[in-house]
Amino acid sequence: MKILVINAGSSSLKYQLYDMTAETVLASGSVERIGMETSIVTQAVPGRPDMREVSEILDHVTAVKRLLDMIAHPEYGVIESIAEVQAVGHRVVHGGEVFKQSVLVDETVKLEIRQLFDLAPLHNPAHMMGITAVETNLPGVPQAVVFDTAFHQTMPEVAYLYPIPKVLYRRHKIRRYGFHGTSHHYVSDQAAELLGRPLDELKMISCHIGNGASCTAIQHGVSVDTSMGLTPLEGLMMGTRSGDLDPAIVPFTMNKEDLTLSDVNSMLNKHSGLVAISGLSSDMREIEEAMAEGDRNARLAFDMYVYRLRKYIGAYTAVMDGVDALVFTAGIGENSSSLRAEVCKNLSYLGVKLDDAKNGMRTKKPREISAPDSRVRVLVIPTNEELLIARDTYKLVTEQASSLSGQREEGTDA
Amino acid sequence: MKILVINAGSSSLKYQLYDMTAETVLASGSVERIGMETSIVTQAVPGRPDMREVSEILDHVTAVKRLLDMIAHPEYGVIESIAEVQAVGHRVVHGGEVFKQSVLVDETVKLEIRQLFDLAPLHNPAHMMGITAVETNLPGVPQAVVFDTAFHQTMPEVAYLYPIPKVLYRRHKIRRYGFHGTSHHYVSDQAAELLGRPLDELKMISCHIGNGASCTAIQHGVSVDTSMGLTPLEGLMMGTRSGDLDPAIVPFTMNKEDLTLSDVNSMLNKHSGLVAISGLSSDMREIEEAMAEGDRNARLAFDMYVYRLRKYIGAYTAVMDGVDALVFTAGIGENSSSLRAEVCKNLSYLGVKLDDAKNGMRTKKPREISAPDSRVRVLVIPTNEELLIARDTYKLVTEQASSLSGQREEGTDA
Repeated sequence: MKILVINAGSSSLKYQLYDMTAETVLASGSVERIGMETSIVTQAVPGRPDMREVSEILDHVTAVKRLLDMIAHPEYGVIESIAEVQAVGHRVVHGGEVFKQSVLVDETVKLEIRQLFDLAPLHNPAHMMGITAVETNLPGVPQAVVFDTAFHQTMPEVAYLYPIPKVLYRRHKIRRYGFHGTSHHYVSDQAAELLGRPLDELKMISCHIGNGASCTAIQHGVSVDTSMGLTPLEGLMMGTRSGDLDPAIVPFTMNKEDLTLSDVNSMLNKHSGLVAISGLSSDMREIEEAMAEGDRNARLAFDMYVYRLRKYIGAYTAVMDGVDALVFTAGIGENSSSLRAEVCKNLSYLGVKLDDAKNGMRTKKPREISAPDSRVRVLVIPTNEELLIARDTYKLVTEQASSLSGQREEGTDA
Repeated sequence: MKILVINAGSSSLKYQLYDMTAETVLASGSVERIGMETSIVTQAVPGRPDMREVSEILDHVTAVKRLLDMIAHPEYGVIESIAEVQAVGHRVVHGGEVFKQSVLVDETVKLEIRQLFDLAPLHNPAHMMGITAVETNLPGVPQAVVFDTAFHQTMPEVAYLYPIPKVLYRRHKIRRYGFHGTSHHYVSDQAAELLGRPLDELKMISCHIGNGASCTAIQHGVSVDTSMGLTPLEGLMMGTRSGDLDPAIVPFTMNKEDLTLSDVNSMLNKHSGLVAISGLSSDMREIEEAMAEGDRNARLAFDMYVYRLRKYIGAYTAVMDGVDALVFTAGIGENSSSLRAEVCKNLSYLGVKLDDAKNGMRTKKPREISAPDSRVRVLVIPTNEELLIARDTYKLVTEQASSLSGQREEGTDA
C-alpha cells in the first residue's frame, strides 16, 4: 500500500510518499510560500534527479495538486498514476481532549478539529486546509489524522491540571496537553526494541531536542508527564522560546514596556530562548561554533539550555521514582554530542555514565551511548514522525477494510 | 543587648523584643489594621497577662509609638524604659541585586531600598514606613535591614537569568531573585548543626512550605537555586498562588476573559493554588480535614501540591548531582506529617526512607524523621526568621561598635 504523509502549515506543505511493504520512502518534498507568486516546489526521489520548480501556488488545493503531479511525474516522479495513493495521513498539532489516538477523517472528526482552532490558532486551521485540499484532489481516498497531543492524553490529573481557577478549564479547556507526542511515542517504541526489553516494564525519559524542545516521562509505555503545556511555550528553553518563567513576568513586562498581548506572545515565542541569551542565533550549531571561539554569551546560552533540561530529567525521575533509560532525539538531541555529555555530567547520582567514544560517533542509526556499567541506559534514537503517521494510517485503513469485509461476510451469512 | 525585630506591612506591623544574652523573646505582638479607626494591638509577654487593645492608629509612626508604649508598659510590658531598646532589625522583602547580606541603615541604604519599590511594590514601601517610623520614635538607635532575597544572591547566572530578551534584565532588572531567604538560611544552619556535619560539605534541599512556599537547593552552605523568581509567584503551588504555569496562559486568559493586568495578577496570586483546586480553602489543615472526609477536590489539591513539590526536589537533586539532606520547615512543612510522607514516598530511588513514628511525632523541636538506613537524612526544623534578623542585627551593631572604638583607640594612639 502506498501512503502519502502530509504536514500542512499555513504557507507550506511537506510530504512523503511511503510504500508500506517495506516502509520505504518513495518520494519526499515540500511546497513552500503557498499564497505567493513565487512558490517553491522541491522533491527528492531516490535514484532520480532532484526537482525544484518556482511557480504561482495560491492555495492548498493547488499545492496538493502540484505535489500529486510531482510524485506521478514521468521524469521526476515515482508512481504511474495518482490512483496508486491509497491513503493519506496528516499531522495535526492539537487533538485537545477529544483525540486520544489517531483516527480516520469523517465529518465528525473534521468538526472536532475545527472546534480546536482556538487552542492551536496557528496550526489546526492549516491542517484543515490540507485535509480539504486532499478531499478535492483525491475524492474517496481515506485520510487519517495523527495528533501531536494524543500520546500525552494518558497524563494523570495531577500532571495535566494547572492550579488556577477551575472555571478556566471548564470554559476554555485550559490544561496541559503536551506536544511532540508522535515523536516521543515513536522513540519510546524504538528504545524498548533496542534495549530488548518490554516497554511496559520501563521507566523512560525522552528528550525531543530540536528547534522546539520537550521532555516526556514515559512510565510503562505511557506518557505520565511532559514539559510542554497548554501551548508549546512551556517547559524547556528552546531556540526562540523561553520555556518556563515566573508567570508574573508577563503582566510586569506588559506594564513596563507597554506591550500588547500579541507583542508579549511574539516576544516569548520568537525572540527568547537561545537567540535572546546568545544575541547571536537560535541554531545550536552556530551557538556551539561561537562557543568554540570563546563567545561568552553563546556559552551562557548553551549552559542555561543544558541546565534547564537537566532539571526536567531530575524532576521526571522523581515523578517515576527512578529511570531506566534516557533517550535523546530530534535535531540537537541526535547531533550534539557535547549537549548530551553536558546534560549527563551531573547525573552521576543516578548512576548515569556515558561512553565518550560512542557518544562522539557520527551516525544516523539508533544506538546506545552509555557505558556498560551505567545504571541508566542512555540512547540516541533518530525520530521519524512521518513513519509513525504512515504506520497509524496504514493500520486504520487496513482495520477499516477488514471490518467492512467482515460486515460484508456477516451480511452474506445472514 | 535588647533588640526589637519588626516586620512592617502596609496595614500591619509585627514585632518581637529579643534579649540577646540568651536569645530569649521578651515580648511579641502586632499592630493590625493600621490606618483604620479600629486598629488592634496585641502583645504577649511570658509570665504576664496577654494584652489586647482597640484604638485609632492612622500611620506607622503611631503604630511604632504604641508598640514602644506596650513593651515599656508598667503592667503588661517587659522593660523599664524604651531607652533599653539598643537596636532595631527590620525584615525587608526585596534587596534586589544590591543587597547580598544584611546591613545597617543609612541614607544610601534607604535610597537603594526605595529604588527597589518597583520590584516589590506591595512590600518595600511598607518596610520603609517601618524604618522611618522607628527613626522618628527612637532617634539615634541603630537599625539593620535583613532581606528575604539576600541568601539567594549566590545563585549562578544559569539559575537566575530568564531566557528572554536581555534588555529586560538591563532595563528592569527582570531576573530570578528568590524569597524566604532568611528562613532557608536559618534552617540550613540548624540542619548542619543537628546532623553534626559542616555546612560546606552538605548538599541540602530546604522546603519552606507555609502559606507561601519555596524550595531551595543549598550546596555547601550557599543557595544555588530556588523556586521563587522575579516575584513570589513562581515555583511551587501555594495556598492561593498558582506557582509555575505555561506563561502563554497569561495572554490567553486575558484575551478570553477580557482581564486587565491587575485582574490577572490578582487571579494568579490570590485565587489560585490550593483554594482554586479544592474549591474550599487555602489552608492545608482544612484541606486535610476535608480529604479525611472523602472530599475528592481536596484530595486532588493535596496531590497536586505534593506532586509539584516532589518535582522540585527531583530537579534540585539533579542540579547538585545528589542530595544529603532534605529539610521541611514553616507552617505546613513543620506540621503536616502526611504531606512529608507523601512527598518522600516516590523518592526511594534516592534512598529516602522515613521513620513513620518519628515523622508522626508532634513536637516543636528540630528533629530527624528519616530511618537509620535512609541514604538521605530528612529533617524537620522549625523556622525562626525573627531570630535570624535579631542575630544579624546584633552582629552588625556589635561590629560597628567595635570598629568605632577601634578607630577611637587609633585616634588616641596618634
